[in-house]
Amino acid sequence: MISFENDYNTGAHPLILKRLAETNFEPLPGYGADPYCESARSKIRKACGRENAEIEFLTGGTQTNSIVISAMLKDYEGVIAAKTGHISTHEAGAIEYTGHKILEIEQKNGKILPSVLKQYLEDFYSDGNHSHMVYPGMVYISHPTEYGTLYTKQELTEIHEIAQRYGIPLFIDGARLGYGLMSLRSDMTLSDIAGLCDVFYIGGTKVGALCGEAVVFSPEMKPAHFMTSVKKRGALLAKGRLLGIQFDTLFTDGLYFNISRHAINMAEQLKEIFHEAGIRFYLESPTNQQFIILENQRMETLKKSVAFSFWEKYDEHHTVVRFATSWSTTEEDLQRLKEIVSVYKQ
Amino acid sequence: MISFENDYNTGAHPLILKRLAETNFEPLPGYGADPYCESARSKIRKACGRENAEIEFLTGGTQTNSIVISAMLKDYEGVIAAKTGHISTHEAGAIEYTGHKILEIEQKNGKILPSVLKQYLEDFYSDGNHSHMVYPGMVYISHPTEYGTLYTKQELTEIHEIAQRYGIPLFIDGARLGYGLMSLRSDMTLSDIAGLCDVFYIGGTKVGALCGEAVVFSPEMKPAHFMTSVKKRGALLAKGRLLGIQFDTLFTDGLYFNISRHAINMAEQLKEIFHEAGIRFYLESPTNQQFIILENQRMETLKKSVAFSFWEKYDEHHTVVRFATSWSTTEEDLQRLKEIVSVYKQ
Amino acid sequence: MISFENDYNTGAHPLILKRLAETNFEPLPGYGADPYCESARSKIRKACGRENAEIEFLTGGTQTNSIVISAMLKDYEGVIAAKTGHISTHEAGAIEYTGHKILEIEQKNGKILPSVLKQYLEDFYSDGNHSHMVYPGMVYISHPTEYGTLYTKQELTEIHEIAQRYGIPLFIDGARLGYGLMSLRSDMTLSDIAGLCDVFYIGGTKVGALCGEAVVFSPEMKPAHFMTSVKKRGALLAKGRLLGIQFDTLFTDGLYFNISRHAINMAEQLKEIFHEAGIRFYLESPTNQQFIILENQRMETLKKSVAFSFWEKYDEHHTVVRFATSWSTTEEDLQRLKEIVSVYKQ
Amino acid sequence: MISFENDYNTGAHPLILKRLAETNFEPLPGYGADPYCESARSKIRKACGRENAEIEFLTGGTQTNSIVISAMLKDYEGVIAAKTGHISTHEAGAIEYTGHKILEIEQKNGKILPSVLKQYLEDFYSDGNHSHMVYPGMVYISHPTEYGTLYTKQELTEIHEIAQRYGIPLFIDGARLGYGLMSLRSDMTLSDIAGLCDVFYIGGTKVGALCGEAVVFSPEMKPAHFMTSVKKRGALLAKGRLLGIQFDTLFTDGLYFNISRHAINMAEQLKEIFHEAGIRFYLESPTNQQFIILENQRMETLKKSVAFSFWEKYDEHHTVVRFATSWSTTEEDLQRLKEIVSVYKQ
Repeated sequence: MISFENDYNTGAHPLILKRLAETNFEPLPGYGADPYCESARSKIRKACGRENAEIEFLTGGTQTNSIVISAMLKDYEGVIAAKTGHISTHEAGAIEYTGHKILEIEQKNGKILPSVLKQYLEDFYSDGNHSHMVYPGMVYISHPTEYGTLYTKQELTEIHEIAQRYGIPLFIDGARLGYGLMSLRSDMTLSDIAGLCDVFYIGGTKVGALCGEAVVFSPEMKPAHFMTSVKKRGALLAKGRLLGIQFDTLFTDGLYFNISRHAINMAEQLKEIFHEAGIRFYLESPTNQQFIILENQRMETLKKSVAFSFWEKYDEHHTVVRFATSWSTTEEDLQRLKEIVSVYKQ
Repeated sequence: MISFENDYNTGAHPLILKRLAETNFEPLPGYGADPYCESARSKIRKACGRENAEIEFLTGGTQTNSIVISAMLKDYEGVIAAKTGHISTHEAGAIEYTGHKILEIEQKNGKILPSVLKQYLEDFYSDGNHSHMVYPGMVYISHPTEYGTLYTKQELTEIHEIAQRYGIPLFIDGARLGYGLMSLRSDMTLSDIAGLCDVFYIGGTKVGALCGEAVVFSPEMKPAHFMTSVKKRGALLAKGRLLGIQFDTLFTDGLYFNISRHAINMAEQLKEIFHEAGIRFYLESPTNQQFIILENQRMETLKKSVAFSFWEKYDEHHTVVRFATSWSTTEEDLQRLKEIVSVYKQ
Repeated sequence: MISFENDYNTGAHPLILKRLAETNFEPLPGYGADPYCESARSKIRKACGRENAEIEFLTGGTQTNSIVISAMLKDYEGVIAAKTGHISTHEAGAIEYTGHKILEIEQKNGKILPSVLKQYLEDFYSDGNHSHMVYPGMVYISHPTEYGTLYTKQELTEIHEIAQRYGIPLFIDGARLGYGLMSLRSDMTLSDIAGLCDVFYIGGTKVGALCGEAVVFSPEMKPAHFMTSVKKRGALLAKGRLLGIQFDTLFTDGLYFNISRHAINMAEQLKEIFHEAGIRFYLESPTNQQFIILENQRMETLKKSVAFSFWEKYDEHHTVVRFATSWSTTEEDLQRLKEIVSVYKQ
Repeated sequence: MISFENDYNTGAHPLILKRLAETNFEPLPGYGADPYCESARSKIRKACGRENAEIEFLTGGTQTNSIVISAMLKDYEGVIAAKTGHISTHEAGAIEYTGHKILEIEQKNGKILPSVLKQYLEDFYSDGNHSHMVYPGMVYISHPTEYGTLYTKQELTEIHEIAQRYGIPLFIDGARLGYGLMSLRSDMTLSDIAGLCDVFYIGGTKVGALCGEAVVFSPEMKPAHFMTSVKKRGALLAKGRLLGIQFDTLFTDGLYFNISRHAINMAEQLKEIFHEAGIRFYLESPTNQQFIILENQRMETLKKSVAFSFWEKYDEHHTVVRFATSWSTTEEDLQRLKEIVSVYKQ
């Protein structure tokens, strides 16, 4: 059976496994102090065009969100996020576990609108009772969003300016950042992203690594003794080399971008297949996640020959489902999918 | 330069890397629901002689300690541990971060004495003010301890009985469990361990894996919705296969025990080399960590040709240092060490 | 200047001060073990018609909400509340501080509709990803609500039934419970309230006490070692008598109900005054808090002779403000107010 | 029966009740913004000789400790305290509940020795692994200590200097500060105390108030938005007047000092009575708490006619018990006690 279930259902890009094997017997310092972590940091800084960025590696996305947010917020602050944000919906309350509220605001296709953010902040400070309320202390966005959509450079610039005006950092969850950068609709480079926020992470888990996210702090944004805070949250990997070697490989010869470009290429073909089959899209996604609407009976039949994800109920008779591509999606997968869906043409 | 710095300074046992590569392209469910996790669980249950044990995989030791302890303690409870316990000293306050106190008690060579534990519990309940105190809600021990020492079957039996008498679980931190089981002094099997506590973990990170610990709950001891609690703490690995495949490999054909036996064998030779060189031991350790006392000048010279760990100051002129063996320690490493220390014979 | 700013702007009902003085020199046990606490518990049990209810006293409303909720929720659970709930908006993130998410749902005039609650719970359990989400573990409502509105007996019965069906407790924040019970529109007695939820509190701070809330747990609902959890949260009053004597007085000869009835009587006259002056109401409130819409210029003028609270912006030119009555509101206050507003008749 | 059980077993000094009654009908702003709080702050600043100190009022001791400590510590820090410190032993884990470890060090008669503190800090920073340990971020002492003992000015000066050298604040728990200042052995004034630490509190609950502690921050030491942090911890009293009026009264005409002096006077007579009766003291306490050693049978007999507190087991046949004096201890109480103990002369 072919699978478009998600972008983390296979192992790692083969070059990563190769490098893990090649370096396997070298005795190295633990906890991120090895030369591969150092080399990866250096390459990421270069790719970001930020020679003085501070970079640390963590294991997964929810972990990264909860550590970065809780280490940067002040005691009396919470984090602004879209109601559909990953931290708001699918992280089992990981942010609240750290003692901070998520200030959920309205969204459109997974995105926070600059105007909505601005209004929220204005309203907060004009409320005479705000000392009994949670202070907005950070803005969280995901790019691409949970719906595969992208912020434009203009929107990101506006959001960053609003955050700066209120003296609060902008944090970008880049669990799928590569797919955003390589999207045919993207009008931003990695360097643009780095310049338009205060901290972000470059997702590895969903872009070809076994695990791992690289957190990039703008200068002076990294909290003091950050790795002790990481240890305190049980997130400091003893064999930090596992993260260092993976990111060093991903940022050698543009592998991270190549993986992403491949997945986008596959996703564009996927869209074409659905379009040809007359299948409706739930929204227009320019990245590696595609959301389509299936009639329930048809969905059940399709499930037998191809794996995909349930997303949400659309109406009594239809369901929104997600198809994702990744580094490991092949032309053969697509060919097979095309044959399968052609049968269901409406 | 040769290294005895710790037991996690090299990658993974080559069989693990081989299996990761072989399974790399299989699309699998995430979050621990894949067949390799299931197979690993089944093999571990068999190795423990506990067909109904509940097993979950986590990434590292501090993470495992903080999750197991915080998910099992009640609101008003803390965990009893030796003052030298890993959770008491070197986890950056990870237990306290979850809102629970560590009730630190006296120890001897890293071990809690049953009599000291018993007295602590008796004193607590005879104190009329105990409703203003933290209730003892769990006993934590490490086996081997942080000083490489081992509990005897008799001691563990007594500690477990005391815990049971007070209705609180006994949790064994087995970050280096394999070395304890394969020690020439061990009088316990894995099955004994499983029967003499309520929850324990089988350490992977320090016994040949890239990362990973297998938590083994006695029947009915696993907290409800445990994996949601894991997710809430940012510790749920998307590619759970990384842990499943590693533990499946470690528990195939006795690899976990073979790795441990090899390291013990290397450690026995290491002890012999130090004995022959007239070097003093800080204490008698029957496992893969050896603690010796070096005159400070000699220590500085030695450092130039062999890597080891600072442990603690012994006196003005001497230091306690640690040498550790692992799956990757070779006869050549030992031969080289022998040549180096022979020069320093006292 | 007269004040309708809130229902806690004066001290305590004089009978309370009298009893504090009368008992002042008696040496009593601390922490809620004194005979006045015991007597108050007994009287409250009787007033609730629940002889086996468990009752404890706390100091304030936010404290009570955060302690009751965090002590009753399981690790993986959050609490369902209206978006306008006090815990959602004006407690500075006190619930999240305890590590739990508030699951905010839509409301109408401050009330949760049974149908909305039912839908939320159904949707949660029909979502295949719910193990990555915060489990609904409690329903929180306030009665009267933050907008002064009341649940009917029918609505409360339905909400309780829904909560029971999902095995989760219903908690009623009764910071202003007395005003709800004495409202002319109320169709419930204290005994009804006690029977239609699992835990609630009887507010003292806003109903004539200096401070204090009485938490009433249905049998078997009080968490084990609850007072140790209270101590752990820094909320255990050494001189528990301060709370015991107040509640003992409030539940002697119906004082709690008399205070509330008086405030309702004053509120009804207040409404009449506003109606006569042609002032618009923001919503219809049957309790001691009245929300009116004032043209901004008029509001500024009014502020000079009478104290009230800003509530929220209505539109560019109008503001919603709150007037509250209490035990200390007098006929003279109302007479004076009538004179003041009569000038502004539209 | 007479009672020396503790210093909070009676109500409030009558002048406090009088002022509460006199001001009862004044409508005042809530949450500490009323003129009585302001007046109390002003008087306390004057009494401390610190015109720019920042002062806030909280309800109880454990609450104050947990809020001040958690609001001032950084994420990666813990608080150094004596093993016998109130936060270490009798606050049910309130500090750990906020996510921070108490770094417990050795003590003598309840006091931290400057040399022990210095050694602890030196050892911490000379340990190469300290990034995996909890950073010392504050020093907590109680004055008087839990054993009624006092720091000398010389000792406090040394402790403060050590803390300053390491850039961490010194916090004094002054739950019984008045008794320390009025002790015949005290060599410090309130102004000395204020100058020799960074934050301290003046205990009200145990020195004649119904409840309440006044936190005094040295300039620039009060955390930003501190009252929002107080609200977040459920500790913001709606009727802040209750605290303001009490402290305003306590710092009018030296009442706080008079109460304390009276209790010390009573304690000195108490000591004399015990000395005359040949009763052994557990240690020499110069304040209002006296610790004596009673043979168990005698203790049981004594219990029938006078109330005191169990402290700790001394040996198989003896127990340490505590007698405390307060504002409400009378000459008659002492006379009665003298008669009772004279019977037991050894």
